[in-house]
Amino acid sequence: MTTPLDLARTLLRCPSVTPEEGGALRALGEALAAGGFAVEHVTFSAPGTPDVANLYARYGTASPCLVLAGHTDVVPPGEAEAWSHDPFGGEVADGLLYGRGAVDMKGAIAAMAAAALAFTQKEPGFAGSIAFLITGDEEGPAVNGTVKLLEWAKAKGERFDHCLLGEPTNPDALGDMIKIGRRGSLTGRLTVHGTQGHVAYPHLADNPIPHLLRLLRALLETPLDRGTPRFDPSNLEVLTVDVGNGATNVIPASARAAFNVRFNDVWTPATLRGEIERRLDEAAGGARYDMEFLPTNAAAFVTEPGPFVELVAEAVAGETGRRPALSTTGGTSDARFIKDYCPVIEFGLVGQTMHQVDERVPVTDLDRLAAIYRRVLDRYFAADSRVAGG
Amino acid sequence: MTTPLDLARTLLRCPSVTPEEGGALRALGEALAAGGFAVEHVTFSAPGTPDVANLYARYGTASPCLVLAGHTDVVPPGEAEAWSHDPFGGEVADGLLYGRGAVDMKGAIAAMAAAALAFTQKEPGFAGSIAFLITGDEEGPAVNGTVKLLEWAKAKGERFDHCLLGEPTNPDALGDMIKIGRRGSLTGRLTVHGTQGHVAYPHLADNPIPHLLRLLRALLETPLDRGTPRFDPSNLEVLTVDVGNGATNVIPASARAAFNVRFNDVWTPATLRGEIERRLDEAAGGARYDMEFLPTNAAAFVTEPGPFVELVAEAVAGETGRRPALSTTGGTSDARFIKDYCPVIEFGLVGQTMHQVDERVPVTDLDRLAAIYRRVLDRYFAADSRVAGG
Ligand SMILES: [Zn+2]
Ligand SMILES: [Zn+2]
Repeated sequence: MTTPLDLARTLLRCPSVTPEEGGALRALGEALAAGGFAVEHVTFSAPGTPDVANLYARYGTASPCLVLAGHTDVVPPGEAEAWSHDPFGGEVADGLLYGRGAVDMKGAIAAMAAAALAFTQKEPGFAGSIAFLITGDEEGPAVNGTVKLLEWAKAKGERFDHCLLGEPTNPDALGDMIKIGRRGSLTGRLTVHGTQGHVAYPHLADNPIPHLLRLLRALLETPLDRGTPRFDPSNLEVLTVDVGNGATNVIPASARAAFNVRFNDVWTPATLRGEIERRLDEAAGGARYDMEFLPTNAAAFVTEPGPFVELVAEAVAGETGRRPALSTTGGTSDARFIKDYCPVIEFGLVGQTMHQVDERVPVTDLDRLAAIYRRVLDRYFAADSRVAGG
Repeated sequence: MTTPLDLARTLLRCPSVTPEEGGALRALGEALAAGGFAVEHVTFSAPGTPDVANLYARYGTASPCLVLAGHTDVVPPGEAEAWSHDPFGGEVADGLLYGRGAVDMKGAIAAMAAAALAFTQKEPGFAGSIAFLITGDEEGPAVNGTVKLLEWAKAKGERFDHCLLGEPTNPDALGDMIKIGRRGSLTGRLTVHGTQGHVAYPHLADNPIPHLLRLLRALLETPLDRGTPRFDPSNLEVLTVDVGNGATNVIPASARAAFNVRFNDVWTPATLRGEIERRLDEAAGGARYDMEFLPTNAAAFVTEPGPFVELVAEAVAGETGRRPALSTTGGTSDARFIKDYCPVIEFGLVGQTMHQVDERVPVTDLDRLAAIYRRVLDRYFAADSRVAGG
């Protein structure tokens, strides 16, 4: 019997900093295979990016198929000396399991696997199937990870009905929050071209900086929207402004800025680009500028509450006694890729220590999360499930 | 008999790019010494700056003393291949003398020296004295040049009544413009401190960029003044804005900008700093920022029109047939140092090609400038001069 803690410690001892597999997917695959899952390790490549290992595993072939998704890669531990426990030691102290990835999200993967193995052991002939979709490229460029794993699975005929992604979704305590969607993300680079000159003769020059200030103001001064029933207002942050003029008597030739928008379902990436271009055009006043948007596949999406969301929320409430908020806040996740294949929501551990020194999770939270996932499986595949139909 | 052209060619052949003396001050000193001037070469040093050679020469000891001032150092020629003539060749073609410094300002120094040598040869016992105050550090940091040469001269008892500085003052044609003053210059560096964070969680961060944009707007949106009878309006240019954040998901911790103000006699450097600080304070809205001003000794000044200005204007008009405008436009010059010792005005060649490839001067302009300087000397030291008294 695999416990969540045992598996989590095994995974934490694998130094799987993106793009290294570090043994984590192998260990997970062995545990799942031992429980009867068909496990496949798939490596994807792309020019200019490192190869990345991914894992796909499935128990059963029947519909409905519930996908449990996540990533075993982790961000670097930073200064290992700053940790009170080895970031790759899987050590437990005072009921807390320490390690890089403890909450984001090896702990959740261990809970998923433990729940699935216990469920399939108890109900080996259940009506449906469970798939694991685990990438090693979530914290990195996300090019050779979930996107390609989904395409690969589709190409081989895999069909999914619902997905539960195990990212840390709870701000403070287990049971706080289910993520039912995510905002989109769009990054733009704005360059204003002026005419270089001497500060003593400004009429012979055209300082690009006041133009850039005016354009940025046009992006910032009016809110993009007021939010929607499921989303906070969209938010634009200027990331950087750079001119790089070290001389104190020279008016520079050009000025650059970059910004990022976290946007809600008022916008698609295309309509948002259009609105930004409209604002710049209106404020340009003859200034010459280039507006370049980085390619994005992070559109805003929401999985509207319904039987599946309700099933997961009831599992959380049943185990924790807390009715989870249904939220679309926070950053992007691989759910933005999965949503094109099946409805996806997210529930995992408490995110407070993620990406930080001494990332850690209470062992009791691991066990409770596994119990929540088990409740989800029990209900999802129950004979009277309202979800499993479609 | 030294002609302006001969001496100008000699000086142009000396590669006196700041801080190199290049033989220019030596050659000038020999020419002046041969005409009876007492010549002194003085080198000044300061930590962190190169040693710089300067020249002081004087003919006569009586009052009044008219100072002819200038610099033999030049800016680099840039790409020598782009020149149609050797930038240090002193070549004449089609009546034009080519070379780095031809107009800024070896040509003017040659004209001054030729005029002074001709005058002292004709009037060896004139009632007064002529001093040359020539630095090799005008185009550089201006630390080991005119400032120290003036202090040094004062310490040894030298007293000056008026100064004519030979910077190129004419925009288009010889006779266009006398500079009777200069705007001041003040440079400031502004740093706004925010709180770093993730773009998806802006409420946990404090983006310093919008604060910086607001502060810069407070400096730019209301003119500093409307100008004065002698000066154009003061002008503030933002030189650079730099954040240096290369990440597309991070709100940066701080943002920096630098600006330069060319200001008129509404302001002293201290009152201008006060106004800038007042505007920032008013617009700060709780933002944390540091405002640092670079040390400046470039205050605005004007030599009010009077007998001396009139004498020089008449010399220009008499030679060129043009009544020169009395202007305070353009950049700073070493006049900002000299004005603390005696009234100073500026008249020299046509500035169009200064600091450019193929810097050049018509030989006829050299001769006419020497003739103008000669008229100045004749009138300044005439028995009925209205100026020489004080
Ligand atoms: Zn994660
Ligand atoms: Zn000059």
